[in-house]
Amino acid sequence: MPAESTITERLRRLATIPPGSPVELGIGDDCAIYRPRGSADDLLFTTDMLVEGTHFIRDTQKPAELGRKALARSLSDIAAMGGEPRFALVSLCVPVWASPKWTDQFFDGILKLAAATGTILAGGDLSHGEILSCDVTVCGAVPRGNALRRDGARAGHEIYVSGLLGGAALGLTTQKGKAWTRHKHPEPRLELGRLIREKLRATAAMDLSDGLSLDLQRLCLASGCASVISEPPRFPGATSEQALHGGEDYELLFTVKPGTSVPALFDGLPLTRIGVITRGIPGTVFLGDSPLPALGYDHFNPMP
Amino acid sequence: MPAESTITERLRRLATIPPGSPVELGIGDDCAIYRPRGSADDLLFTTDMLVEGTHFIRDTQKPAELGRKALARSLSDIAAMGGEPRFALVSLCVPVWASPKWTDQFFDGILKLAAATGTILAGGDLSHGEILSCDVTVCGAVPRGNALRRDGARAGHEIYVSGLLGGAALGLTTQKGKAWTRHKHPEPRLELGRLIREKLRATAAMDLSDGLSLDLQRLCLASGCASVISEPPRFPGATSEQALHGGEDYELLFTVKPGTSVPALFDGLPLTRIGVITRGIPGTVFLGDSPLPALGYDHFNPMP
Repeated sequence: MPAESTITERLRRLATIPPGSPVELGIGDDCAIYRPRGSADDLLFTTDMLVEGTHFIRDTQKPAELGRKALARSLSDIAAMGGEPRFALVSLCVPVWASPKWTDQFFDGILKLAAATGTILAGGDLSHGEILSCDVTVCGAVPRGNALRRDGARAGHEIYVSGLLGGAALGLTTQKGKAWTRHKHPEPRLELGRLIREKLRATAAMDLSDGLSLDLQRLCLASGCASVISEPPRFPGATSEQALHGGEDYELLFTVKPGTSVPALFDGLPLTRIGVITRGIPGTVFLGDSPLPALGYDHFNPMP
Repeated sequence: MPAESTITERLRRLATIPPGSPVELGIGDDCAIYRPRGSADDLLFTTDMLVEGTHFIRDTQKPAELGRKALARSLSDIAAMGGEPRFALVSLCVPVWASPKWTDQFFDGILKLAAATGTILAGGDLSHGEILSCDVTVCGAVPRGNALRRDGARAGHEIYVSGLLGGAALGLTTQKGKAWTRHKHPEPRLELGRLIREKLRATAAMDLSDGLSLDLQRLCLASGCASVISEPPRFPGATSEQALHGGEDYELLFTVKPGTSVPALFDGLPLTRIGVITRGIPGTVFLGDSPLPALGYDHFNPMP
C-alpha cells in the first residue's frame, strides 16, 4: 500500500484551487478554510473517520464512548485552528452486529459532547454494512483571517505542547487505569485553542493526533523550517517512545513569537515549552543533538 | 434492525436547534442550511456514504465510476435545493484489496466530476479497513433565503419529475445496456436545480434517491399535505414497479404553483407533470384512485 502521505500529496497537487475561490485553504492542514461571501467569519471544515478494526476493536469500548470519540476527534481539529464549533454532520454505517439500543447509545455519546460544546447535529447519512464506519464532519468559525494554521512558524519561534503526552498510546497497550480512560476519552482543547489564537497570538498550531514526531515534522514542513526539542512532558507511566511517537493524545502543539508570555497552566492543563523553531532542512526535527525520526502513526505504514 | 426513519426521527427530536442559531435547517431535508454571519449566501451541506456490499459489489464497477458516483450522489442533493456546489470533503476507508492504482483511479473519478461541476476538493480523511466505505460531504451555495426545501408544497401545486424513471433499478437487475450505464453514472441535475429555483420558482423540491413512492411521501410529509399522481414517465424497458419504487435515479421531483409555465424539455431532459398536491392525510400518495404504498428503498428494510 502507498503511504497515506503519498495519496494526500497527489490529491493536493491535483485538487487545485483557482484564484478568487472562496476556498481559502484546501488539503493539508487540520481544517479547510472557506470564506463566505460578505461574511465577518471564516468557516473551518474537518472530517474524520472511525473504522472498526482500525480505530477500535468491537466490544472493547461502550457505544457512547465511541460516539463521543468520533465527534471529539473532529472537534480537536477545530480547536487546533482556534475555532468555535458550529455544527456537525454524522455519517454512520450501522454494523450488522449493532442492536437498536447500541445505535441509540452511540448517537447519545455524540449528542452529549455536541451539547457540551455548542455543536448542532445538523444532518448526516445512515447506511448499513458488515463493520462500523463513522465519518464526522464539523464546521467551526473564526473571525475572518484569524484561523491558526500550520504554516506560520518561523525560526526563533518557541514550541509548546498542552498536557502530558503518551497517555493514549500507553492506554492502548494496558487497556486499564487512567491511561485507558485517556485513550477512550480525548478532550478537544477548544478553550485552549481560542486562548492561543486570541491572547497568545500563536504563529502556528495543530493537534497531536498521530504522535509528536510525525505531527511536528508536518508543522515544520508546512512552515518551511526545522526544529529542536527536548523530551516532552510525559503522561504518568508512559515511556519516552510513547510520548514522542504515540498517537491520539489530541493535545495542541503550537508556536509563539519569542518572548510571548505563556502561562504554565491553563484551566489546570500544563502548557510546556519543548523547543524552538530553527532554520534547516524543512521538516527535520532534532531531539537535543540527535535527529528524531517521524515514527508517528501513518494509516498505511503503522508502527512496527 | 430499526427502520432508518426511526433513527432519523429520534435524532431530529434530540438534535434541537436553539433560536438565533446560524443553522437554518437541520436534519430532514436533502441538505442542512447554514447562514454565515453577514453573508449574502446561505450554505448547503449534505453528506452521503458509499459502502461496499451495500451500495455496490466489488469488481462489478470500475474505480473511476465508483468515485464519480460517490460525489454525484451528494451533488444531487445540492441540485435538489437549487444550489451551486462550492467544495467537497472526501473520507475514504481504503480497503485492503485495493491497489494504489485502484485508489488513484477512484479519486480520479471524483476529481473529474468535481472539475466539471466547479467543486473544489478541499479536504477529507484517509483510513484503511476490510471493506471500502467512502463518505462525501459537499457544500453548496444559494442566495440567502432561496434554497428549495421539501416543506413548501401546498394543495393545488403541480408535481413534476425530470427524466425517465426506473432506469437505475432496471440496470441493477440486468447489469447491461443503457440501464446499467444509468445505474452506474447518475447525473446530478445542477443546471435544472437552478432553473427551477430561479425561473420556475418551485415551491418544493428533492432528488429521487430512494424511489418516487417513498420520496414523494417524504415531500408530502414535510409539507403537511397529500398528493395524487399518474404513472410517471418510464425509462425504456423499466417496469411500472421500477419507475414507481426503484431507487437511485437521481432525477428531481418538484412542485410549482398552478399555472406555472414549465418547459417540456430542459436541455434535452423531459420535465413531466405527474400530478397535483392535495389536502388529505399528510404523506399519503394516490396513484389514480388507489393509495400508493411507499415501497422505495429504506436501508434497514430493503425491498423484498
